[in-house]
Amino acid sequence: MTYQQVLALFAADLGAIESAIFDRLSSQNELLQEIMTYIARSGGKRLRPLLACICAKLNGYEGSDHIALGNVVEYLHAATLLHDDVLDDAHLRRGAPSANSKWGNHFSVLGGDFLYTSAFDILLARFPRDIIRVLCRASMDMIEGEVLQRQWRGRIDITEGIYYKVISLKTASLIAASCRSGGLLGGADESAAGDLEEFGRSIGMAFQIIDDTLDYMADQEKLGKILGGDLRQGTVTLPLIYLMQSLPEGEDKRRIRETVEGGSIPDDFVLRIRTLMEELGCARRALDTAASHAERSKEKILSFAGSPAFPALEAAADYIIHRSH
Amino acid sequence: MTYQQVLALFAADLGAIESAIFDRLSSQNELLQEIMTYIARSGGKRLRPLLACICAKLNGYEGSDHIALGNVVEYLHAATLLHDDVLDDAHLRRGAPSANSKWGNHFSVLGGDFLYTSAFDILLARFPRDIIRVLCRASMDMIEGEVLQRQWRGRIDITEGIYYKVISLKTASLIAASCRSGGLLGGADESAAGDLEEFGRSIGMAFQIIDDTLDYMADQEKLGKILGGDLRQGTVTLPLIYLMQSLPEGEDKRRIRETVEGGSIPDDFVLRIRTLMEELGCARRALDTAASHAERSKEKILSFAGSPAFPALEAAADYIIHRSH
Repeated sequence: MTYQQVLALFAADLGAIESAIFDRLSSQNELLQEIMTYIARSGGKRLRPLLACICAKLNGYEGSDHIALGNVVEYLHAATLLHDDVLDDAHLRRGAPSANSKWGNHFSVLGGDFLYTSAFDILLARFPRDIIRVLCRASMDMIEGEVLQRQWRGRIDITEGIYYKVISLKTASLIAASCRSGGLLGGADESAAGDLEEFGRSIGMAFQIIDDTLDYMADQEKLGKILGGDLRQGTVTLPLIYLMQSLPEGEDKRRIRETVEGGSIPDDFVLRIRTLMEELGCARRALDTAASHAERSKEKILSFAGSPAFPALEAAADYIIHRSH
Repeated sequence: MTYQQVLALFAADLGAIESAIFDRLSSQNELLQEIMTYIARSGGKRLRPLLACICAKLNGYEGSDHIALGNVVEYLHAATLLHDDVLDDAHLRRGAPSANSKWGNHFSVLGGDFLYTSAFDILLARFPRDIIRVLCRASMDMIEGEVLQRQWRGRIDITEGIYYKVISLKTASLIAASCRSGGLLGGADESAAGDLEEFGRSIGMAFQIIDDTLDYMADQEKLGKILGGDLRQGTVTLPLIYLMQSLPEGEDKRRIRETVEGGSIPDDFVLRIRTLMEELGCARRALDTAASHAERSKEKILSFAGSPAFPALEAAADYIIHRSH
């Protein structure tokens, strides 16, 4: 099954989620509506809602609450994007002006707060408590991950272990929670729900490692953001950690240490790093690490191989691993 | 009963809540712990937890979950303070440096996010769904109130009606929710819970109107913040709305319009406004309005007059109305 076929198979569900995302922006306040509509529209791939839907169907779910669940996980994701934009002074998000540069910090913080609380409001109206708790815990993890990432800003001495902890909390936790909560909605027992959670966590790790690697590799136009954007914000990710492991002591290594710790990152420096990463195979190595997480994720779902929705989950996993942007 | 006697009567509960506030700051992350401990410690009067406790006892509650409830309402309150500080570039909060000026916007936003989600995590572990929903709705209201207030920044044409809507959402909603959720915890029926909610809303309105009036009247030293601080941030509150209603067209009125809309507020301008408010009785009039909300609040709780906890609720209401700082 291809990813396009997955999207076709779940087109009705994804369409209903898309409607819910906009219809549920239920504030009376026009500015809040405008901010949240903007961020919902700038949208991305709705990967988390899709995974939640597939995991629900995988467990035989036939109700309609997976639509609200998909809506909720996207709100939680969008809330973190809004707050990230505030923090980063990010001027671009997927090629469009960030909400922050459009409305200022004030309203981006409040828009994110409203998305968080709206998500819990929807959950509290109809979902079992175990599902709400899974998503509440994932929100706490995302926040902790963001804090940890910021604490390590501008520090070239970040270890592989700390990097994995950051991305596990910041990115993989919500993807894992989307899969687990989808499974629980479908009636998964604790063992099956645990497998889906671990599947989601591994896929999330792969997803973020690929994202961090493309940040050094992709064209600006294709990715819609600046080459080396993470580094420019002081965030040291896996390809650069690998580069520091591979580089012998010398001029390049010394310059990387000084520049990253100094905080001002010139364009030619990013290009030099990119060249070194290519020469020393660091990008390749990072993508291999992502692939091994992806492989691990697939092992976790073998027990679902008999389900009609299984090929869709496998195809979604493959898509995440092989996407180029 | 005096307020001191109320505090003595609830000393064990307030002490347990104080411990819970610190013990539950359960992040593994040291910086998050530090930020949240700081904001919890800078603390204020724990008015919301006290009201939640009294309203639980008023309905005969004999369990121990009012401690966790008091903890939760204080976390929700502290989360809004942290996010307010980010937004306002406030340099002082109760005389101490704001969290924002200590750690920067980044960590204040994330600290607030963590307090919000921790509050729901505690609620989801043990509270009935109707109580959780009350507090979720109150959080949404607070956010909407903050947005509305900011939309009216620097606008001298704000009406009394809009001002009341802002403070009802921003301040009174959490106080109302503290009273309602306390009542529900104690087993109040819908009618009793509704009365407690309305009591809390009226007390909250009175509380905020008094706060806004003291902002023009009190000594800086006593209040621990700058005279006319709201105005300096462009927030037009009830005493100034009354002043604009009372002032005849002329030099003073023209200067107020231009200065507020211009956004830069000189010290001598604040002193002139204060003098005019005194001359025209605007501060007095605002305090009278607060008193009428307070009176209304007392009518709402007459049906509880037979309860042993009733005098404590009355005394707490009186304290809020008569506090000078």
